[in-house]
Amino acid sequence: MKGNTFFFSSAPAVVTSAAVGGKMEGDGPLSRYFDKINEDPFFSCDTFEQGESKLLKEAVIHALGKGELTSEQIDVMFGGDLLNQCVGTTYGIRDLGIPFLGIYGACSTVTEGLLLSSLLVDGGYVSRALAVTSSHFCAAERQYRFPLNYGGQRTPTSQYTATAAGALVVSAEKLPPFVRAATVGKVIDMGVTDAANMGAAMAPAAYSSLKQFFADTELSPDFFDAIVTGDLGKVGSRLLCELFGRDGVDIRDLHMDCGTMLYSFDEQDVHAGASGAGCAASVLCGYFIPKLRSGEMKNILFAATGALMSPTVNAQGESIPAISHAIWLSGEAGSLPDIRFAKRTVH
Amino acid sequence: MKGNTFFFSSAPAVVTSAAVGGKMEGDGPLSRYFDKINEDPFFSCDTFEQGESKLLKEAVIHALGKGELTSEQIDVMFGGDLLNQCVGTTYGIRDLGIPFLGIYGACSTVTEGLLLSSLLVDGGYVSRALAVTSSHFCAAERQYRFPLNYGGQRTPTSQYTATAAGALVVSAEKLPPFVRAATVGKVIDMGVTDAANMGAAMAPAAYSSLKQFFADTELSPDFFDAIVTGDLGKVGSRLLCELFGRDGVDIRDLHMDCGTMLYSFDEQDVHAGASGAGCAASVLCGYFIPKLRSGEMKNILFAATGALMSPTVNAQGESIPAISHAIWLSGEAGSLPDIRFAKRTVH
Repeated sequence: MKGNTFFFSSAPAVVTSAAVGGKMEGDGPLSRYFDKINEDPFFSCDTFEQGESKLLKEAVIHALGKGELTSEQIDVMFGGDLLNQCVGTTYGIRDLGIPFLGIYGACSTVTEGLLLSSLLVDGGYVSRALAVTSSHFCAAERQYRFPLNYGGQRTPTSQYTATAAGALVVSAEKLPPFVRAATVGKVIDMGVTDAANMGAAMAPAAYSSLKQFFADTELSPDFFDAIVTGDLGKVGSRLLCELFGRDGVDIRDLHMDCGTMLYSFDEQDVHAGASGAGCAASVLCGYFIPKLRSGEMKNILFAATGALMSPTVNAQGESIPAISHAIWLSGEAGSLPDIRFAKRTVH
Repeated sequence: MKGNTFFFSSAPAVVTSAAVGGKMEGDGPLSRYFDKINEDPFFSCDTFEQGESKLLKEAVIHALGKGELTSEQIDVMFGGDLLNQCVGTTYGIRDLGIPFLGIYGACSTVTEGLLLSSLLVDGGYVSRALAVTSSHFCAAERQYRFPLNYGGQRTPTSQYTATAAGALVVSAEKLPPFVRAATVGKVIDMGVTDAANMGAAMAPAAYSSLKQFFADTELSPDFFDAIVTGDLGKVGSRLLCELFGRDGVDIRDLHMDCGTMLYSFDEQDVHAGASGAGCAASVLCGYFIPKLRSGEMKNILFAATGALMSPTVNAQGESIPAISHAIWLSGEAGSLPDIRFAKRTVH
């Protein structure tokens, strides 16, 4: 670890990944990148919560299938979601029989799972580690805000929780993309109290971790094909670019945000964009990882972002802390000296 | 990893730990093992939830202080708790500035944090990792069951959630106790639906992980001074011993349970015992780790247990899955061949 960043000398590989979504995701511009779209928000279950568990399990099953793997070949699984006590995950995977370590990073969960999976593979502790997360619009709305039946109005800064799940498997095989480095985020709380403006709460966390990554790796933003955030949406994305702008660093042409990619602002009523743990996870697993594998993209810096609020403490007047972990995914394995040679520092 | 068990060749050390409790814990038989007892359930805050955050932070501060460490010397922190979205932890540690990875394992959280901390130290990824967790009776009751003001009756199988937190730091220093091996648990669901009988829901998970540990390490139960479970309470403890008894293995004289140790059954009205993430964490950090350091105990197998239920899905008729991770803590470092030599297999 240098600074807050882990460097993976063995370059652990994301060997398979899958994304599963709901109707809204199927109607959006990234529809064709999903392995499966479910039109039924209940996923043929009795409740939305059971539906989310099924959604998450489907992502795991698809990822295993695409990698021609069985659950017995997974040494450890990292997973978590937005539902209280992470029941989307634990009920979804309970019959798979895979050793399990629960994680909670709100919408940053996919990067935490990828980071820990990469560490265990890089350290030679496991042959294969799986990371998974999900979110479900209907289950999240009634837990975090209001039951859908209430018909509550949403403010312009609010984001639409994705009904989506992403799963990926990391192993030591020489199959791109590779995980080259990862920066562990700190909990950042700038005092935002509006639970309908998660983008504003999370942008400083993304800024903190990305800046730390650049400092620790001595890489500059333009080394990357894209700097991708999880679900800052329109508001948070603008704030992130402004924060970098204050440092004299213009990332506007490089920056992409899963929350602004998942839905069509023109055709879908999503206000400031998408959110939810499944947003960053499905866009990473369905869109970016395949593009890195095919060579269409060479290097991305992926920083999912999580708002660590709870309705209870928010109602007590608390502000919203956030966290973001930044992960460098690359089409090439390479060792650290090559990286240093390739870097183009602009500072 | 052999089977589901990690072996730590470098024997990472728990170099400091601390336990902080509330009034009930201060009135109990383990009172003197706590670094601090708080009589006020609000911890001088406005709400129980804020109180839990302060409790958790106090455990971190005490652990750092006893180890003569500053927060800058901690490379990464693992933490989580029972409150929705783990706000006890994230709000408690948000101003410490330590890179943070959130974990969720309900009452098994302390072993998950210790396991991951040990992996990162053993792999040479960090110099020092911190693990912390907490629970708070008043905050947990109103979230999981009923507000205290309701005055609900508790059934005989129910357990009393501890108001307690435990924190520990793992590093590569040669200071006992050492973490020698750890078995990652699977999610086990035997169909128990009674949320007031967590012991019954969790006992099969403890059994599964302990049995896996013995198989993977080829160690027998009587190698250990004690086989310690997290918070099975009276009911779960009896079930665990019965499950081993069916295999012809009598662990009754070796078995200890933090849930039956924390309170006095004669003098405190706790029904089947203590529970909560802070129960196993405070007893591990306050009682067992110091005894291993002093040499009073040589080897313990510690398996905290977590019931992964949520009130929402439980109300929907779902059963309660559980998980347990088993960790071998030892006063001696030793390498694996020494362990194998020392083992006394009884099977």
